[in-house]
Amino acid sequence: MQERIIHSLRKSTDYLSGEEISRALNISRAGIWKYIEEFRRQGYEIDAIPRRGYRIRATPDKLLPWEIKFDLGTKILGHNIIYKETIVSTMDEAVRLGIEGAAVGTIVCAESQTKGRGRLGREWVSPLGKGIYASLLLRPKSPLSEVSQLTLVSAVAICEALRAVSGVDAKIKWPNDILIGGKKVAGILTELNAEMDRVRFVVIGFGINVNTLAPQLPAHATSLKLEAKKDFLRVPVVQEILRSFEKWLDIFEKDGFVSIRKRWKDLSFTLGQKVKFIEPSREIVGVAFDLAPDGSLLLRQDSGDIVKKNSGDALHLSAI
Amino acid sequence: MQERIIHSLRKSTDYLSGEEISRALNISRAGIWKYIEEFRRQGYEIDAIPRRGYRIRATPDKLLPWEIKFDLGTKILGHNIIYKETIVSTMDEAVRLGIEGAAVGTIVCAESQTKGRGRLGREWVSPLGKGIYASLLLRPKSPLSEVSQLTLVSAVAICEALRAVSGVDAKIKWPNDILIGGKKVAGILTELNAEMDRVRFVVIGFGINVNTLAPQLPAHATSLKLEAKKDFLRVPVVQEILRSFEKWLDIFEKDGFVSIRKRWKDLSFTLGQKVKFIEPSREIVGVAFDLAPDGSLLLRQDSGDIVKKNSGDALHLSAI
Repeated sequence: MQERIIHSLRKSTDYLSGEEISRALNISRAGIWKYIEEFRRQGYEIDAIPRRGYRIRATPDKLLPWEIKFDLGTKILGHNIIYKETIVSTMDEAVRLGIEGAAVGTIVCAESQTKGRGRLGREWVSPLGKGIYASLLLRPKSPLSEVSQLTLVSAVAICEALRAVSGVDAKIKWPNDILIGGKKVAGILTELNAEMDRVRFVVIGFGINVNTLAPQLPAHATSLKLEAKKDFLRVPVVQEILRSFEKWLDIFEKDGFVSIRKRWKDLSFTLGQKVKFIEPSREIVGVAFDLAPDGSLLLRQDSGDIVKKNSGDALHLSAI
Repeated sequence: MQERIIHSLRKSTDYLSGEEISRALNISRAGIWKYIEEFRRQGYEIDAIPRRGYRIRATPDKLLPWEIKFDLGTKILGHNIIYKETIVSTMDEAVRLGIEGAAVGTIVCAESQTKGRGRLGREWVSPLGKGIYASLLLRPKSPLSEVSQLTLVSAVAICEALRAVSGVDAKIKWPNDILIGGKKVAGILTELNAEMDRVRFVVIGFGINVNTLAPQLPAHATSLKLEAKKDFLRVPVVQEILRSFEKWLDIFEKDGFVSIRKRWKDLSFTLGQKVKFIEPSREIVGVAFDLAPDGSLLLRQDSGDIVKKNSGDALHLSAI
């Protein structure tokens, strides 16, 4: 009902009378008034003028489900949104929903996380209301061996969305960090739940520093605001990410990894650079010269030997 | 405390006096009596003779944690046991515990499941008190690509345990069903939760038809009781499985897949047989002539072509 009232108000070009809302949504005038009061508590500014009706004057900068869904325009992604002011981790919640059978495209988003997770069990700093902390539930038909390619699909989708909404020159650090000017603006974490014969679900988590300020960020990180020198409403950013995801997932399903690989390479920060991988038993240094058809990174060492890496952290020697 | 009282009684060769228990466990005589009454409600028959003490005369045929843990003799597996009379699915519960950080070797077992799962979303029939329905939590260091080998490790471990406790000639149908005389006595289901760079945990579920009778079983299934013509206590079966698992997991960790593969081949029902795989776009028929070093099944078709299968159902043409 909240969604239907807000969408009615948004669709109306002028004041919308309580009577019209009441008739259209089959709710009493008193009922409407209660919702309006609730919206105001959430930070909406809503004009209410006798004999004319209601009009939204200002919307709070929150990732409210009915705001994300308004004019979203996706076929599947984001039709089911779980929203929390504060959550332990959007990943844990999405995995739980995946086990319980939640629909493809379900997204969990929060204004802050108390224990946001990054890759390899690292922390993801999640200050309240500044970033986008979200996890998207997918149920791909790909076999287990191809799921790592989904991580690269996600990187392309998010990188393109950030470029579209902010105009910044975002690039992808292998496998799936998004950088601006060599600094991290977004991280992506892919988790999966599978039997040996089939993937039950994949959760793609993304943390995006939107309006985050320098003192709140770890070293080597940045935000859209710091780079574009302006504030961003986060709802349109989430919407653009969902549309971009849907577009690239469709391409992945239709054409396989070929088109993804091509676009990933265009957007790559890593290719052409000298990088280092630190492994338990050795260090590998080489020039990252290509993305292999399976999504691995190909390095040429000084010796001329070629090494293929399908996991780990690529330290960019030029950027350290 | 339940565990400590039962273990004290089991360790004593004669009656154990309330006074001794009271002193050893720091619990009042009245407290002991309450536990004894509780044990009797669970089906224990316990003699209580004034001035001599307590003695267990009979133990209920239930998978009670303190019974499984008595004289178990494993280093890690089964030290944390979650036991339920009835559960929706031991898999779901173990996955939930895995997410919450439960210890390696935690096992969930139940007397019955309302929605027991088999491979590929199939049902696993789980009549009350007749079988073993359990899920074991592991946190292997293997990369994602090697986890499917764990399924074969599990098959070897369970097949050997069933042979040891019952003397039946159990064999492995690729990849991980356990058969006796061509009929299924146990199924194994492996689920995993992983990031792209590391496996967070694996849950190995096993359903074993122990004392299950023919009318309760699906077609092509059997039970230890039907094959060995006698009833089995289920606790020693679970204990033997846990010991066997620990042994074979140690071997897998130390030597890799080589020794597992050798033993799997010894125990194989599938090798040497003509099998059929039904895929969405084609059917593959061939003689299963080897297990590949990565755990895939190798088939030789009539044409002489060799096909490698790493998932799916092997229909045994001779057995259909």
